[in-house]
Amino acid sequence: MSLFSGVRVIGFDADDTLWSNEPYFRDAEEKFCDLMETWLPRHSAQRELFATEIDNLKLYGYGIKAFMLSMIETALRIGGDTLPSDAVARIIEIGRSQLELPVILLEGVEETLQNLYGRYRLVVVTKGDLLDQERKLEKSGLAGYFHHIEIVSEKRASDYQKLLRHLDVNPNEFLMIGNSLKSDILPVLELGCLGVHVPFHTTWEHEQVDVIVSDPGFRQADEIKQILTWL
Amino acid sequence: MSLFSGVRVIGFDADDTLWSNEPYFRDAEEKFCDLMETWLPRHSAQRELFATEIDNLKLYGYGIKAFMLSMIETALRIGGDTLPSDAVARIIEIGRSQLELPVILLEGVEETLQNLYGRYRLVVVTKGDLLDQERKLEKSGLAGYFHHIEIVSEKRASDYQKLLRHLDVNPNEFLMIGNSLKSDILPVLELGCLGVHVPFHTTWEHEQVDVIVSDPGFRQADEIKQILTWL
Repeated sequence: MSLFSGVRVIGFDADDTLWSNEPYFRDAEEKFCDLMETWLPRHSAQRELFATEIDNLKLYGYGIKAFMLSMIETALRIGGDTLPSDAVARIIEIGRSQLELPVILLEGVEETLQNLYGRYRLVVVTKGDLLDQERKLEKSGLAGYFHHIEIVSEKRASDYQKLLRHLDVNPNEFLMIGNSLKSDILPVLELGCLGVHVPFHTTWEHEQVDVIVSDPGFRQADEIKQILTWL
Repeated sequence: MSLFSGVRVIGFDADDTLWSNEPYFRDAEEKFCDLMETWLPRHSAQRELFATEIDNLKLYGYGIKAFMLSMIETALRIGGDTLPSDAVARIIEIGRSQLELPVILLEGVEETLQNLYGRYRLVVVTKGDLLDQERKLEKSGLAGYFHHIEIVSEKRASDYQKLLRHLDVNPNEFLMIGNSLKSDILPVLELGCLGVHVPFHTTWEHEQVDVIVSDPGFRQADEIKQILTWL
């Protein structure tokens, strides 16, 4: 019996697993640093923004609205009384335009979903803004492959535990696929689920971990299609 | 056989059904109008804010972060170049403090849930920010009564349709309880589900409808406890 033979439900992370996302955030960050250059060198502005984002995670959670508010708060801290109102307007514009960017599927995603559809129950498991993620799923053209979309506020083992109960599956019946070892893989392995890591070229600093995973339920894939050789 | 005898799952709206919420928004709006008085009379500032919120619903959805961004955008539009950065800082403060307000249960809620718990599957069905709603549910002390929390980006018939599929129930097995006829009751009646309206003293303008409901699956309650006489 192979490792994956008991799998009934497959969870897919969305951003940077199904479609490209992090480069859009990096791009918005660049624009933010442009705007702050009057007050601070770019790398310092970027560090300030990252610090605000981490500080705000507990209060705002993930997603673009949280990112917009963090940019505004950082600009207020950096610019103080000298921050003109049009800098705030520009930040709002940066955020709003990000909500309307095209969704670019990653290579092999559609082919993989086509193959798995009907054989497994497929769900999207993602952090971020519900509305924005639903919109991206719609735009992606992939919505039809998925039973539903699960938005979680965090991806800790306890959050996946709730998800398993909600999905009514045992740990060994659940496989999670994603680009973040920290959010998509390590917590599910902790619960006895299966996990396949498909790296993306850019990872947000907050998601980076430096580990070698030796769990028997773990597989490392070079590209998403590779999971078809195991399923 | 009574109207409610087939019910298996009961959905509860959260804000202004389980706990008080709208008064906090009205209060934040008052503070926003204070801030705008340099430029506009209060009622005009309020109208401008409402217009921005409605415009932004499609892009930002519901919840406090959306409300914060709408306040900032409205202030930028009203104040233009003369808007000082500390007005933006003050808006952020208004929003952040709203995220930390106490959760005040409405009368009869806990008693009602205690009675229903174990006899039905109880779920929270709410719009708004996932993280904020989870936090409120936690603070409310009610989390233990609910199987899980469903966050939806809208509450149209099509959204409830998805929810029914997801919950794996037939329309006549699902009862929705809430304070908004528009969001909690009319769309579920359209699907053949049951609906009990429990009004709250303050309703957001966007949620107001003027109808007399004559659907056989509908009941009007004066207070939430009244549903126990039917279930």
